[in-house]
Amino acid sequence: MSNTSDFESSDSVRTAKPLPYAQYATLSQPLELEKGGRLPGVVVAYETYGTLNAARDNAVLVEHALSGDSHVARHNDQDDSGWWEIMVGPGKPVDTDRYFVICPNLLGGCRGTTGPGSLNPATGRPYGRDFPVLTVGDMVEVQRRLLDHLGIERLMAVVGGSIGGHQAMTWAVRHPERVGGVAVLATSPRLTSQALAFDVVGRNAILRDPHFHGGQYYDKPKGPEVGLAIARMIGHITYLSREAMTEKFEANRLEPRNVATEFEKTFSVGSYLGYQGSKFVERFDANSYMTLSLAMDLFDLGGTPSKLASTFKSTKCRWLVVSFSSDWLFPPDQSRDIVNALVANKVPVSYCEVCSAGGHDAFLLPNEFPIYGEMMRAWLANLAQGAGKTTADEEAPGPNSIFRQHRLDYDLITELIPANASVLDLGCGTGGLLSRLQARAHPRLVGVELDERSILAGVSRGLDVIQADLNRELAFADGEFDCVVMSQTLQAVYDVERVLLEIVRVGRTCVVSIPNFAYAPLRHMLAVEGRAPKAPGVLNNDWYNTPNIRFFTIADFEEFCRAKNLRVHRRVALNTELQREVLEDPNLNADLAIFVISKATV
Amino acid sequence: MSNTSDFESSDSVRTAKPLPYAQYATLSQPLELEKGGRLPGVVVAYETYGTLNAARDNAVLVEHALSGDSHVARHNDQDDSGWWEIMVGPGKPVDTDRYFVICPNLLGGCRGTTGPGSLNPATGRPYGRDFPVLTVGDMVEVQRRLLDHLGIERLMAVVGGSIGGHQAMTWAVRHPERVGGVAVLATSPRLTSQALAFDVVGRNAILRDPHFHGGQYYDKPKGPEVGLAIARMIGHITYLSREAMTEKFEANRLEPRNVATEFEKTFSVGSYLGYQGSKFVERFDANSYMTLSLAMDLFDLGGTPSKLASTFKSTKCRWLVVSFSSDWLFPPDQSRDIVNALVANKVPVSYCEVCSAGGHDAFLLPNEFPIYGEMMRAWLANLAQGAGKTTADEEAPGPNSIFRQHRLDYDLITELIPANASVLDLGCGTGGLLSRLQARAHPRLVGVELDERSILAGVSRGLDVIQADLNRELAFADGEFDCVVMSQTLQAVYDVERVLLEIVRVGRTCVVSIPNFAYAPLRHMLAVEGRAPKAPGVLNNDWYNTPNIRFFTIADFEEFCRAKNLRVHRRVALNTELQREVLEDPNLNADLAIFVISKATV
Repeated sequence: MSNTSDFESSDSVRTAKPLPYAQYATLSQPLELEKGGRLPGVVVAYETYGTLNAARDNAVLVEHALSGDSHVARHNDQDDSGWWEIMVGPGKPVDTDRYFVICPNLLGGCRGTTGPGSLNPATGRPYGRDFPVLTVGDMVEVQRRLLDHLGIERLMAVVGGSIGGHQAMTWAVRHPERVGGVAVLATSPRLTSQALAFDVVGRNAILRDPHFHGGQYYDKPKGPEVGLAIARMIGHITYLSREAMTEKFEANRLEPRNVATEFEKTFSVGSYLGYQGSKFVERFDANSYMTLSLAMDLFDLGGTPSKLASTFKSTKCRWLVVSFSSDWLFPPDQSRDIVNALVANKVPVSYCEVCSAGGHDAFLLPNEFPIYGEMMRAWLANLAQGAGKTTADEEAPGPNSIFRQHRLDYDLITELIPANASVLDLGCGTGGLLSRLQARAHPRLVGVELDERSILAGVSRGLDVIQADLNRELAFADGEFDCVVMSQTLQAVYDVERVLLEIVRVGRTCVVSIPNFAYAPLRHMLAVEGRAPKAPGVLNNDWYNTPNIRFFTIADFEEFCRAKNLRVHRRVALNTELQREVLEDPNLNADLAIFVISKATV
Repeated sequence: MSNTSDFESSDSVRTAKPLPYAQYATLSQPLELEKGGRLPGVVVAYETYGTLNAARDNAVLVEHALSGDSHVARHNDQDDSGWWEIMVGPGKPVDTDRYFVICPNLLGGCRGTTGPGSLNPATGRPYGRDFPVLTVGDMVEVQRRLLDHLGIERLMAVVGGSIGGHQAMTWAVRHPERVGGVAVLATSPRLTSQALAFDVVGRNAILRDPHFHGGQYYDKPKGPEVGLAIARMIGHITYLSREAMTEKFEANRLEPRNVATEFEKTFSVGSYLGYQGSKFVERFDANSYMTLSLAMDLFDLGGTPSKLASTFKSTKCRWLVVSFSSDWLFPPDQSRDIVNALVANKVPVSYCEVCSAGGHDAFLLPNEFPIYGEMMRAWLANLAQGAGKTTADEEAPGPNSIFRQHRLDYDLITELIPANASVLDLGCGTGGLLSRLQARAHPRLVGVELDERSILAGVSRGLDVIQADLNRELAFADGEFDCVVMSQTLQAVYDVERVLLEIVRVGRTCVVSIPNFAYAPLRHMLAVEGRAPKAPGVLNNDWYNTPNIRFFTIADFEEFCRAKNLRVHRRVALNTELQREVLEDPNLNADLAIFVISKATV
């Protein structure tokens, strides 16, 4: 199809930049829509990057967000930048030297794909408000047909942020057999009522703009530019974090930029919004905005944990979920809901809440790219190699490691875990232990870790690592794992009782290793020297800056288990200084103990 | 003045409820405005409650927020509820049986006081956009004239939330000699750029509404109702927290209420906003909205700590500052900025961030009223009695107190504090120690505490208590206090090193009491029994649920002081079991030690 695409029938976007590399597929089969109505046929604008390999298994579908288009990245040095230039391109995380990237403009948009500005064959005029209500499912159905048209049976991955994430998740749910992996950023199972409310106000501003003319403004001298600009301004505020706006505008809040806009320009933030609103009107169609934002608002994978888990029953692929701490439009808790629902279905998933001041837009910004971009790179590379096929590399001991030669405790913990057990490693760090277990035949290995760089390291090893704070509730079902491991982490946890009760709830058996505070040299320090004990190993910090906040002994731990009705199946005591097991009076002679425990009823 | 007030000249608010108890003062002296322009005279609508006493010193000025009015509370059982019914009335925190309450409608409003809908004597028509730009300072100037008119020289207190807080703070800064106390809730030194941005979009919606007619819509058949409703909808979202909206709308998000509105009603939150927007248009004038929201946006006490501190140089009165954790429009950090600037000026202030899901509106809602309402009650009652005149009552020891008969440590700490020293008590709890010190001649007593109920208890004792997390930086200047006290708190602090360096920065001398982990029975437990030490007193918790996370001895603490170059001026060791001072081998025989320390250079 030529560049004379149907979006040009819309006056309101006549100044939008052309997309010289867009291709157009005409899908002539009528499209029955989920909310009723049909489209007699659909044109899809899309761009591709890289080469589909002979096995046709290196295709990555990139989904754009509300106001994006098919131009995800430049095609050559002369080309304009795309909206995700940092992520997609040769040598970039979505590496167009390795993967065949497809980015379609979404159904209902105004950048080449059929939308409300397209000609309605029944009337010969643009659809306007006669364009039917769309859902994200309808958009994905069009993309499925596009893939059929391109002869791609299976996608290596679908990747997207925001409503792009909604589309990617819908792919996984609707077409599980056609998707190898889903990576979503800054997305949600459905919008919060707050996010939805902002959309409603934006649509109201368009709907009640006297120049809206019930959506048939295309042949009018003036369209609902004010309403659309108001909607965009509201949207723009919600895409930024409060911190980011402070950073950008507070130093000179009363120094507006001299921009051409009829909106208020008293404040610098006002001139910025006026400019953004006015610019947006030049490139976007109000009816498309209404259609797409309503589709986003209607999107709903489930409003309760059980509904959401039920939605994800069909998904079979590997997942990466990324959220951003300052994103208040699609807040991290909603990503955690997605992750929890995937976990409930035993779906392999890695999750990271990236610490960021970038707000919802953070997934488009360079600031935290070293974390989320590299996570995407590693995750896709693992997906391309096949899950868990990376070589298990031994974790290098740090300068403070008590195991300078060899992780004797890992040897013993590994022995204590049945080779066919599903394993959850709480406080997995960079994945040293799980990485060892990868070489064995475990049906499921999951790590939980708080630190984002450690999570990146784990994901880079091909592990599934979920970010969580152990002091909060664990989102795993009762008895979900054959074995829960907690290695030298308990002494750094505040609410020990809750955490221990949680792990025996989640694990049918649990392997817990603890430093022993009653190790002879430590007793000596307090009793004879009158000093807070400190020793080589995990207790090798000064009293005032140690990460350890709980001090207890093998005897204390055993009494705790008795008192809380936990059963101790095995105890292995170690002297890591001497690199040997301790059999005689462990509470005096061991500096580390490994316990296998469970609920008493097991 | 009769009830035929000038707001009735505005068509747009002709359906607004009358205010049968409003009184009207005509202030005929021309008002020169801060941003230029003048008003030839001003009418103020106000309501009063209670009786001005003979000394004329029980007047409380209540300031309303953006869309409020003079009707703060009902005048009798038949009367309509006011906007702060929970706070103001007989027996309520702002007790109209004790205080004479005045609530004026603010300048620029549309509920009786002169505003853009009033007749411009120069034209015989409503001002419209000819109404000059106002500042909060202009509003306060009108209120000052009202007080002169009423013959009230000095206000016992000025109280307000949101922009009501802006007015109250302006009173304290402009007329320090006329204000005895300022209590502000959910307010800020100036708006965040995010909050300002929402206001800008709201004004743009009005300004660009074709029915705005440059502000001269009063004689037109239709005004800018759509723009005003859009502005109100945006505002409404920002007044609620995300949690509150989730609670309210998510269970049945697709079940809109059947309300009469031409706005979108697809979602329940949409019908709510449509209703709120439509209702607001009936009672509020668009020009007033523009004028008041611009005044709020122009309000600026200072954007940096030093500017803000400089602004507050003139204030002499006592302060209460309250914020709400989920208020994202006027976030707690901004209240903390106010508090820090007051503290920098040695102004007596209590501060509490109330844990709440209510968002910005929390100060109007009953949910957290037991905290912030009671705090207001106690603070006003203290103000009425005169600061610090409450009787110091001995803190009753709790069931786990190590001092069942008598606080021996308080006796000793009190002895160690010079009687004329300014004192900061970190981790002051309910104010037991400070309460003792109140009986002496200390020029300044300030408590810092995290727990809101303890803060309420402290405020009820007439103390100035500031909420802060000791693990964060202390907002006090170098050497600001003669003496900083930290009683049995250090062992519950994570970053001991930072906290200790902070206290010797802030206090010229510091009195620190610590439990001694090397007390003989504790040594015995670890050395002989091999168990985590536990003893009556501050260490009387199990290892897995103690609030204490740092364990150290007198010897450890002394070595720390040497290593960090802190000077130990005195050490008093106690055995609290035997209720006596320990002179021989304190690191073995004492369970508690009190140190007087400072920077080595002192």
